Amino acid sequence: MSIEERVSGARDGLLEELKEFLRMPSISARKEDTDGFRKCAGWVAEKFREAGAEARMMETDGHPVVYAEIGEGEKTLLSYGHYDVQPPEPLDLWESDPFEPALRDGGIFARGVADDKGDVLARIQALRLYIEEHGQPTFKLKFLIEGEEEIGSPNLAPFVRNNAELLAADACIWEGSMKDGTGRPMIFCGTKGMAYVELRAKGASHDLHSMYGGIAPNPVWRLIQALRTIKDENGEITLDGLDALADPPSEKDLEAIGRIPFDEAAMKASWNVGAFDRNLTGEAALSEMLLRPTANIAGIQSGYTGPGTKTIVPSEAFVKMDFRLVSGQSPGPVLELIRSHLRKRGFDDIEVVDLHGVEAAKTPVDSPIVRTAVESWEDLGVDDAVVYPTIGGSGPTSLIATELGIPTIMTGSVANTDSRLHAPNEWVRLDDYFGAVGYFARFFERFGS
Amino acid sequence: MSIEERVSGARDGLLEELKEFLRMPSISARKEDTDGFRKCAGWVAEKFREAGAEARMMETDGHPVVYAEIGEGEKTLLSYGHYDVQPPEPLDLWESDPFEPALRDGGIFARGVADDKGDVLARIQALRLYIEEHGQPTFKLKFLIEGEEEIGSPNLAPFVRNNAELLAADACIWEGSMKDGTGRPMIFCGTKGMAYVELRAKGASHDLHSMYGGIAPNPVWRLIQALRTIKDENGEITLDGLDALADPPSEKDLEAIGRIPFDEAAMKASWNVGAFDRNLTGEAALSEMLLRPTANIAGIQSGYTGPGTKTIVPSEAFVKMDFRLVSGQSPGPVLELIRSHLRKRGFDDIEVVDLHGVEAAKTPVDSPIVRTAVESWEDLGVDDAVVYPTIGGSGPTSLIATELGIPTIMTGSVANTDSRLHAPNEWVRLDDYFGAVGYFARFFERFGS
Repeated sequence: MSIEERVSGARDGLLEELKEFLRMPSISARKEDTDGFRKCAGWVAEKFREAGAEARMMETDGHPVVYAEIGEGEKTLLSYGHYDVQPPEPLDLWESDPFEPALRDGGIFARGVADDKGDVLARIQALRLYIEEHGQPTFKLKFLIEGEEEIGSPNLAPFVRNNAELLAADACIWEGSMKDGTGRPMIFCGTKGMAYVELRAKGASHDLHSMYGGIAPNPVWRLIQALRTIKDENGEITLDGLDALADPPSEKDLEAIGRIPFDEAAMKASWNVGAFDRNLTGEAALSEMLLRPTANIAGIQSGYTGPGTKTIVPSEAFVKMDFRLVSGQSPGPVLELIRSHLRKRGFDDIEVVDLHGVEAAKTPVDSPIVRTAVESWEDLGVDDAVVYPTIGGSGPTSLIATELGIPTIMTGSVANTDSRLHAPNEWVRLDDYFGAVGYFARFFERFGS
Repeated sequence: MSIEERVSGARDGLLEELKEFLRMPSISARKEDTDGFRKCAGWVAEKFREAGAEARMMETDGHPVVYAEIGEGEKTLLSYGHYDVQPPEPLDLWESDPFEPALRDGGIFARGVADDKGDVLARIQALRLYIEEHGQPTFKLKFLIEGEEEIGSPNLAPFVRNNAELLAADACIWEGSMKDGTGRPMIFCGTKGMAYVELRAKGASHDLHSMYGGIAPNPVWRLIQALRTIKDENGEITLDGLDALADPPSEKDLEAIGRIPFDEAAMKASWNVGAFDRNLTGEAALSEMLLRPTANIAGIQSGYTGPGTKTIVPSEAFVKMDFRLVSGQSPGPVLELIRSHLRKRGFDDIEVVDLHGVEAAKTPVDSPIVRTAVESWEDLGVDDAVVYPTIGGSGPTSLIATELGIPTIMTGSVANTDSRLHAPNEWVRLDDYFGAVGYFARFFERFGS
C-alpha cells in the first residue's frame, strides 16, 4: 500500500484527531490558563508516544516545550513547530466557534488549524503512517514543539542554547510554509532578521496651545526631520552603513528569484493598490521583498487624534519601526547604526528604544535538504514546488539555522495564502491537510533513504 | 467717590454675584442640557436689566445670544464675550468642585471664571458702577454675549451678518486678554487666522504583515514624503505661495514688537525646553510667534500604537495640521495652496480635508481704541500695559474686525497667564477680578469723554 493510499484510508480518524487538538484553547498570551495549557502540551506528548516515539515535557521559564525523538541512524532530522495559538478575538467576526472545529466549503475552520496545530499533527500522523509502511525510521527524527511562538518565543533562545546537543541535526524542517495563490507548494530557505525600535521625541513638558506653534518645539516635526534622513525623497533607505553590513545575495539566490512565478497583479488586487512602493515591478519588486532590508513604519502617534479639531503643539511623539534585515545585518549592530546615524545628524534628543531583535537565517537554496523537499513533492506527483531564498518575515529560525548551524527550511505546510493566520475564520483546505500528512511521510522516506 | 473706591466698597456683593454666575454649568459642548443653559443666558440678560440696559435673548440655530444696549451719543462701543464654558473634565484633577466656586490663595477657582464669565460679569458690574458715578452713558454701549464660543462659534457668522446694523460700532472690546507673567496688562490688536486640515493617506485596503514592507505602499511614509515638502530640513515653511499672500507687518507693528518685554527664559522654563524651535531667540522669536504663519502638526496617527511590537504595514494614516495665518492669508485660498502644492508634487493621492477656517483680524496698533485702552490703565496708576500687534491665537474676531470693519482689541481681562483656561483648577486672582471691574469702568469713562 502506498503512503497516499494509507492517508486516504485513514481520513476520518486523522480528522477526528485534529478536531480534538483544535478544541484545546492553548492561547499562550493568556497567562492565567496554565492548566488547560499543560493539558494541551500533554496531549501532544501522548500523540508522540502513540506513534512510538519517546516524548517528554521540558520546562522553561514560560510554557513547556514538548520534545520527542524516534529512530536510529546516521542522519538526524529536526522538526520545529508550536502547539500554542493566537487569541481568537474579535469573536464576533467568527462564523463558527474558534474552538469547535467546523467543516464547510471543503475546509476546516478553527483557531490554530493553519498556525500551527494542523502542521504539528500532520507530521505526527505522517510519522505513524511512515512506521506502518516501513517500521522504525532508519534515521534519527527529533521534534521540538514549543508553546510560546505566538508571544515571540521568549524562552526559546535559552532552551536551544542549553540543549544544543539534544537538538543537533543534519537539517531542520521549520513550521510556516504554505501553498501559493495557485496551489504551488512554497519552500522557504530563510527568514529575515529584525530590529524593532521605537523613536521618541519630546517637546514641551505638556501640550501647548498652538498659538505658540511658530516657536514651540514640535516633537512630530522633529521625528519627521529625523525620518527624512532614514529614507530619501524617493523612498530609498539612506541609513548610514546598513548596506555595507549585508551579505550580498548569491548567484543561486538570484537564479531562484528568476524562477519564482510572481503574480504581482494578484498581489496588488488583494491589497487593492494600483502600484507597489516606488512603482517597483516584476523581479525588482520580488528581489526587494525577499533580498533587501526594510525600514517600515508600523505605527505613529502624537497629539490629538480624535474627530474634528484641537489646536495644540503636542508634548511628545513616537514612531514604531521594524527594520527587516538580511543575512549579515545583525539587529545589535543595526541598532547601533540607527543611534549613530541620528547622533551624527544632531538628533541626540531622539530616544531610540530597542523593542525586539531577531537574527536573519539563511540556508543555501542548493542545500541537500532543499532538494529533499522538492523531490518529496515530486514523489506525490507535484512538480511545481517553488523555492524561495527567504520568506520576507522573521522568526526565531536563526537559533537553529545560525546558532546551531543546522540547514533549516520551511516546507509542506497545511496552509494556503488565504488561511487567515492570526485572524478570524482561520482555516485550511481538507485536501491540503491530508496532502501535508502524505507529504511529510514522503519526506521522511526521502530523508531516510 | 472714585470708581476704585466704589469697587472697593462693593467687593463682597460683586463676588457673591460672580459665584452665582459660576454655579451655572453652561457647558456648550453638552447639547442635552438646554434648560440649564437658557437659565444661564436669562441670568445674564437679567443682570443687564438690573444695570439699566435693554437686554434680550436672540435665537440662533444653536444656543441663544444675549444682546444688550444702553446709552445714547455720537460714539458706539461694542463689547464681545461669552457665557458658555468648557467641560470641566478631568474631574479628578480639580481640587474643588468646578461649579462651586472656592476661595483660596487670594484667588477664586471655578470653571469659566477666567474664560469668560469673570470677564463678562466684570464689564456688567463696571457698567453699574459707572452709572452710579456718572448716570447714563453719553455714548452707545452694546453687548454681544454668545453661548457657543467654546464649541467654535458655529452660529456667530450668520448672526453677525444678519445683525450688522444692530452691531455697528466705532470700536469693539473683545474677550480674551490677560496679564503677563509679571502682572503687566496685555492689549492685543488682532488674532491670527487659521486653516485646519487633515491630510489622509491610504495604503492597502487592510493592514499587511510587514514582511511586505519593502514593496507595500506605506501611508505613514507617504505622509512624511508630503510633509517634507511643506517644511524644509531646517524647519522653514516651504508651502508654495504662502508668503506672497501675507500683508507685510507695518512699521508700527515692528516698533510695537520692539517694545514688548519678552521673558523668553521664563517661557522656556514653563515649557521645560532648552530652546525654541529652530533656536529662535529674542525679537526674532517674538516676531515669529506674532507676525508669521505656522504649519503646526496637532496630531498624527497610524497603525499599531500600543505597547511592545506589532509588525504591520498600516493601511491608512492621517495628520492634523493647523496653519495659523496672518492678515492677507485667508483660509480658503490657503487651502487651495495646500492642495495645489501637493498636486504639483505628485501627491494627488493624499486627501486634504478642510476641518475649520478662520480669518485673521488686525487693528492698527496706533488706533484710537488702543490709546483708550492704554490710558484707561494709566487712569488706574498702571503705566506698563503692553500693546501686542496680535495674539498668536485665532478666533471669530474677524467677523467684527474685518467683516464689519470695527477696530477690535482685547484688553482688561480678569485672567493671568497661569489661569488654566480649559484646564482643571481654572482661577483668577481676586485682585485682578476687582481690578478688571475698575478698569472697564475707567474704559467707559475714557471712551465717552
